[in-house]
Amino acid sequence: MEGDKNEAKGKVGDQVMQNPQALAALQERLDSVTHSPSVMDSLPASVRRRVNALKNLQVKSAHIEAKFYEEVHELERKYAALYQPLFDKRKDIVTGTVEPTDEECEWQSDHEDEELADELQKKASIEEPKEEAAAEENPKGIPEFWLTIFRSVDMLSDMLQEHDEPILKHLQDIKVLFSGPGEPMSFKLEFHFEPNNYFKNTVLTKVYKMKSEPDSEDPFSFEGPEIIDCEGCEIDWHKGKDVTVKTIKKKQKHKGRGVVRTVTKQVPTDSFFNFFTPIKVSPDSELDEDSEFTLATDFEIGHFFRERIVPRAVLYFTGEALEDDESFEEEELDEGEEEDQDDEMDEEEEEGDSKSGEAQPAECKQQ
Amino acid sequence: MEGDKNEAKGKVGDQVMQNPQALAALQERLDSVTHSPSVMDSLPASVRRRVNALKNLQVKSAHIEAKFYEEVHELERKYAALYQPLFDKRKDIVTGTVEPTDEECEWQSDHEDEELADELQKKASIEEPKEEAAAEENPKGIPEFWLTIFRSVDMLSDMLQEHDEPILKHLQDIKVLFSGPGEPMSFKLEFHFEPNNYFKNTVLTKVYKMKSEPDSEDPFSFEGPEIIDCEGCEIDWHKGKDVTVKTIKKKQKHKGRGVVRTVTKQVPTDSFFNFFTPIKVSPDSELDEDSEFTLATDFEIGHFFRERIVPRAVLYFTGEALEDDESFEEEELDEGEEEDQDDEMDEEEEEGDSKSGEAQPAECKQQ
Repeated sequence: MEGDKNEAKGKVGDQVMQNPQALAALQERLDSVTHSPSVMDSLPASVRRRVNALKNLQVKSAHIEAKFYEEVHELERKYAALYQPLFDKRKDIVTGTVEPTDEECEWQSDHEDEELADELQKKASIEEPKEEAAAEENPKGIPEFWLTIFRSVDMLSDMLQEHDEPILKHLQDIKVLFSGPGEPMSFKLEFHFEPNNYFKNTVLTKVYKMKSEPDSEDPFSFEGPEIIDCEGCEIDWHKGKDVTVKTIKKKQKHKGRGVVRTVTKQVPTDSFFNFFTPIKVSPDSELDEDSEFTLATDFEIGHFFRERIVPRAVLYFTGEALEDDESFEEEELDEGEEEDQDDEMDEEEEEGDSKSGEAQPAECKQQ
Repeated sequence: MEGDKNEAKGKVGDQVMQNPQALAALQERLDSVTHSPSVMDSLPASVRRRVNALKNLQVKSAHIEAKFYEEVHELERKYAALYQPLFDKRKDIVTGTVEPTDEECEWQSDHEDEELADELQKKASIEEPKEEAAAEENPKGIPEFWLTIFRSVDMLSDMLQEHDEPILKHLQDIKVLFSGPGEPMSFKLEFHFEPNNYFKNTVLTKVYKMKSEPDSEDPFSFEGPEIIDCEGCEIDWHKGKDVTVKTIKKKQKHKGRGVVRTVTKQVPTDSFFNFFTPIKVSPDSELDEDSEFTLATDFEIGHFFRERIVPRAVLYFTGEALEDDESFEEEELDEGEEEDQDDEMDEEEEEGDSKSGEAQPAECKQQ
């Protein structure tokens, strides 16, 4: 309710997939929705049994709703194919494979800004040597397109480390692929890289598995598909280039002999690339609170890539989408949990401790 | 992010129509998403023009998205027909037209509570005279089903006045009807009443008109259909029964002659039934800030009826849905705006002033 009271046309509508605030709602949803005995107990038995009949109808309703969401997923698949040519064109322009025509670059509302910028540009070029200016004025495609987005979006910049940046300069595209009609509901994020000196993979993937059916124990909490698990991929790092580990030196004192020697040891470290080795949900093992939080954050990030970053990347690049999401991100991160965890992490690392935290799931059981 | 950090399966999913927090998001959305010059201006002209090409692709994307939402609306229409038999059955049970079978009333997780309640019931029945207990023990259907919901949901109880309650005891059903395939996108709320002494209508209606296309001035703000207008209905009140007006006495002093006489005057007053005479959006007149806020609140309420109350009425009756929405409602009303307005109202009314406020749109241009 903050914000536009000045707008008569309250932005009230059907929010399908596009609303990041949905995440906050989801996070807040209590999974312990229990039957409130106070209301029911005050009712005569005959009325109470009728209310139970309504509750049984409500369970049937939840199952119809689940089918509805499956059809929405189908619809998303169908529309993904319609968006794809636009996304492919985006990739071509970003990578410099295609130079857009003047007509394609015409942006109405910009004219004034552009003239201003052109002037600034001219002024600048007077001050710098000609050759340098020329090179800077015509780079290939849109340099650091995706890296700029990673830097601008809080949820991503929280994961981003300095050593990740040169690698992400090679990121050329992010794609979302939906599971097919017969398959269990899921989506896959594909991170496409140009050949680079860091790893051999050209595509890094992360699959998010979803569930779209009411829980039999708690059918009324059903609100649509939810992410229930995710799977990363193995990164085939070139020797010495793995930014998810760092080498530390540790002094070891031999028991008895008392000789001190220095050993080197590889320990996990913060990196966006830990995104590809998420904590594994296992039916037989309980996750501790930290791991659960880390996993919930991972699911949010996956959802955010799918719902916001990939469909409207250019708006995150220019900053136009950031204002929209601001309140969302504040809510997402308002506990300061993540940052606190990061801080702890850093301290521990300095001591050569390999205990993992936020973006560094070394404790996780990997498959 | 408040709440269930303890839950590994972060409730992240596709939120279609079902998420009331969407409203908060919508309210917060800035409609003044403007191009951020700082990022663009720092780019070389050649890159800037490529970014503009991406923005043009993004506009195309928004138009595809609008078609997606139209298809979702179609899907909702299709599913409305699937839910309807369940809603009809609900109405029959609520009104006592149909007595559900024992099997239909079997509610697994309740057994313990029920036994407890039965015991309490027995104890209570010992204390009260037999006949009275018998009558109370077997009322028709589920008495005050909808009124109880109005009382429990903050957004509705804020509108509810004491004089509305006896009328709402006659409310038998609320239906949502979607616009057809060829028609402009809209939905209609139907409030079905049993014959009563207050008004002649058996159905009161409120239609919400929607728009599902990107604004040509600001295409990037498009997030799906939004409510743009609504239309109420005329209530054919029985003489002296109109709860939306009250009669006040006012002393008038004749100028010159100095004679004081008492006149009675009908002035608008708070009532839920003002919901059926909303402020009219007119293209040629600007709404003041209060009216805009009132209208935005009205749109939220309409959306809430459609998304939450009607699909899951029994859960609002038992209180099971209330916890889910709690955080949402806090956000909705956290400015205390509404209450402030109500307070002002009361004072003004006591002075016999007919200036309208929150739920009392006397200043509005009605068609």
